Amino acid sequence: MRSADPTIPVLDLSASSTDLTRQLCDIESVSGNEKTATDAIEASLAGLDHLELFRNGDALVARTQLGRDRRVVIAGHIDTVPLNNNLPTRYESIDGRDYLWGRGTVDMKGGVAVQLKLAAELTAPIVDVTWIWYDHEEVSESLNGLGRLAREHPELLEGDFAILGEPTNSQIEGGCNGNLRAEIRTFGLRAHSARAWVGRNAIHDAAPIFTALAAYVPREVEVEGLVYREGLNAVGVTGGIAGNVIPDECMVHVNYRFAPSRSGAQAEAHVREVFDGFEVTIVDLAEGATPGLTDPLAQHFLEAVGGEAKPKYGWTDVARFSALGMPAVNYGPGDPLKAHADDERVALDQIEDCERGLRAWLAGS
Amino acid sequence: MRSADPTIPVLDLSASSTDLTRQLCDIESVSGNEKTATDAIEASLAGLDHLELFRNGDALVARTQLGRDRRVVIAGHIDTVPLNNNLPTRYESIDGRDYLWGRGTVDMKGGVAVQLKLAAELTAPIVDVTWIWYDHEEVSESLNGLGRLAREHPELLEGDFAILGEPTNSQIEGGCNGNLRAEIRTFGLRAHSARAWVGRNAIHDAAPIFTALAAYVPREVEVEGLVYREGLNAVGVTGGIAGNVIPDECMVHVNYRFAPSRSGAQAEAHVREVFDGFEVTIVDLAEGATPGLTDPLAQHFLEAVGGEAKPKYGWTDVARFSALGMPAVNYGPGDPLKAHADDERVALDQIEDCERGLRAWLAGS
Repeated sequence: MRSADPTIPVLDLSASSTDLTRQLCDIESVSGNEKTATDAIEASLAGLDHLELFRNGDALVARTQLGRDRRVVIAGHIDTVPLNNNLPTRYESIDGRDYLWGRGTVDMKGGVAVQLKLAAELTAPIVDVTWIWYDHEEVSESLNGLGRLAREHPELLEGDFAILGEPTNSQIEGGCNGNLRAEIRTFGLRAHSARAWVGRNAIHDAAPIFTALAAYVPREVEVEGLVYREGLNAVGVTGGIAGNVIPDECMVHVNYRFAPSRSGAQAEAHVREVFDGFEVTIVDLAEGATPGLTDPLAQHFLEAVGGEAKPKYGWTDVARFSALGMPAVNYGPGDPLKAHADDERVALDQIEDCERGLRAWLAGS
Repeated sequence: MRSADPTIPVLDLSASSTDLTRQLCDIESVSGNEKTATDAIEASLAGLDHLELFRNGDALVARTQLGRDRRVVIAGHIDTVPLNNNLPTRYESIDGRDYLWGRGTVDMKGGVAVQLKLAAELTAPIVDVTWIWYDHEEVSESLNGLGRLAREHPELLEGDFAILGEPTNSQIEGGCNGNLRAEIRTFGLRAHSARAWVGRNAIHDAAPIFTALAAYVPREVEVEGLVYREGLNAVGVTGGIAGNVIPDECMVHVNYRFAPSRSGAQAEAHVREVFDGFEVTIVDLAEGATPGLTDPLAQHFLEAVGGEAKPKYGWTDVARFSALGMPAVNYGPGDPLKAHADDERVALDQIEDCERGLRAWLAGS
């Protein structure tokens, strides 16, 4: 038995995965405040012989060392976006379906609860498993706990296949689109707006940028059997100095979501081509991730879970595994449209489905 | 002799108009801080029998009551835009031309100095004169001292012709263009930018607004012999929520400068026609002013000053006189392009020219 530190909440891993979700959610862990939750997870696993634990900041790695041929990494973040009067959690029923309501239920302590319960219970999975629970996913890229582990201890992330527990309604979503943001600029010459002909209006000069965006037809690209929808959108525009001044600069902030078959360099080249003739500054570029569903491990996983794999449109941390050469999929309970919502809530049956799918695969049953 | 109040600076009206400009500029009077300058002007005129003084806030009205057939209003504001290390003034010479450098030299204490000197010296002008020096011209419309006088004491502004001493390089600029500002809006539907097809991009929907602005050919309109150039310009644009959100609103801030032959209502109708199909909100509308150069008084003034009258493109307070049914022109020393500039400076010969022109006309010489 572990010694009881009264400052660390006790998690009951023998409870159901839905109840464990509730236990985890009620330990508030907004990004930057994960320590108590990580302490509780670490303490709950500390007595288990089949797991080797490694703590890094508020990330925790728990590995089996069974000498299996193949290793799977299964990961989830334990931080949430800020609260908005949505803790503690509560159970509620809507149209006959039962939910757990509150911050973190969808994004993504439902997934973490399933992972944590299986980590404790599956002492002899058919593959070696590296469980990773990490911090700072909801904030700036530079703080991301999985990114920190990849930099400082890349050996801990090694494996043949990865599963990220982000909410997917407990369906498999393979890979993810890449994500690029760019600032497209025009420059003019300031003048008093009563004598506009003395200057040059940078906002007027930006008209072709907006026309190109409005006319753009995004691609749908099949990658390893999944069809990824792309998108090129203005997400912001700024320009103007005062109500009587011809503006000398206009900036259109553009977001390009691109299929994982396109590299970051290719995505950049495409954006530069679309906005040819304008100043283009790339301000963010994250490669996508291929779904890796052709791997036999992934195929077994698909069979165990059932249903049909879909593409992931949003960028997720699966791309970090893809960058390390590992195929990766998203699989977790909860509707992604409820992530970050004030009425964030997860259907209990999705938590149970997720547990059933992962357990069936890892237990080889 | 007036009693000397030691808190009020003494102005020497017997000095040259260039020197008097310097005296006035060195009494700092950024908008809201005009009291000392107005006190000094009032004290300098207090002993003169031919002038009837009226003080309203920090505006001062000085009228002759000679029983002339016609009355001319000659006005100038005494406030300036904020300093930027450009006081006290100094004399300087550039390429052989002499200047007075510093805040207010152009906009518009050169004009005020000429007016003040002539107000004191011309005891028997050929027309009755109402001299007005007023506060708060450089700030919000609601504070404008001339507007306040027009509301509270419209009888003080009565006359047959008005001259505003705004900088015109000491040339006559008749009337002024009208000025309209409008906000043109599009509305969409927010969505995560990874699933843009779920939403509707308000910035993309604004493309026709920019195209219309870029393609717009402004009119040139002859009014009473002067050709007014119009202009329709974006002076600002805003839109966007975050780098990963499809924006549900975009606002283009538009400024329309319109010839004085077009009423405010006609200007509004024109803008609504150009942006037909979009939400148009008029946020500012100031009528223009016709030049009134067909009036015999104006003709005499033109002959005395010499040169050719030009149109005034920017909106000025002449429009307040026009609204009261009085023709009005702008006439003052200084290059308008140097107004508000950090290197604001007035050519001394322009101050002298302005004094000579006004004096010749008012003295009937």
